[in-house]
Amino acid sequence: MKEVKQVIVVRDDLKISRGKLAVQVAHASIIGYENADREIAEVWKKQGQKKIVLRVESLDELMKIKEKAEKMGLPTGVVVDSGLTEIPPNTVTAIVIGPDYAEKIDKITGSLQLLK
Amino acid sequence: MKEVKQVIVVRDDLKISRGKLAVQVAHASIIGYENADREIAEVWKKQGQKKIVLRVESLDELMKIKEKAEKMGLPTGVVVDSGLTEIPPNTVTAIVIGPDYAEKIDKITGSLQLLK
Repeated sequence: MKEVKQVIVVRDDLKISRGKLAVQVAHASIIGYENADREIAEVWKKQGQKKIVLRVESLDELMKIKEKAEKMGLPTGVVVDSGLTEIPPNTVTAIVIGPDYAEKIDKITGSLQLLK
Repeated sequence: MKEVKQVIVVRDDLKISRGKLAVQVAHASIIGYENADREIAEVWKKQGQKKIVLRVESLDELMKIKEKAEKMGLPTGVVVDSGLTEIPPNTVTAIVIGPDYAEKIDKITGSLQLLK
């Protein structure tokens, strides 16, 4: 069976705590799961719901990746933080692509760095 | 309407990267969402899917919190990392409680520290 994964891309130019960062990634994951094709989402869960967290350095870079993914027909989503703590209200913090086939997603995100 | 939230408690004694930590939290979030009461989960999404990430310093502490939550009838879940990178295979990294009513969850986790 072909590998299914979910990729979450976060803005690493925002200076936020590990906890807040993790919350953004979790928001993204739920949004992506809800937006995905149901059959592909089931395969993803059976395979162990693989998630990859990548980083970019700007909002502009983030939105370009989202646009490319949409053009390929991949399910995407955007996380907008209400900004009650740490960052201004309505800051875009992350995007999600998938769950969908890894080989499709890799065409968009294959050159991005892992968040360390 | 009463506040609904999801609390994710992570082991901060494991020395893992921000990215890997975020993946554990996102795994936990999906597991909790799946295990929750469907009506409460819908309210949670309508309220903006509030998530809180807390920390403990040991596996023992983590599992005691899970046990207490279960005794109160709260939906819980455990994240076990396959350990391909950074940590040994089958390491328990986090637990999730909810989404469920905040006032119930706070009785269990109210004294824990936020993950910073």
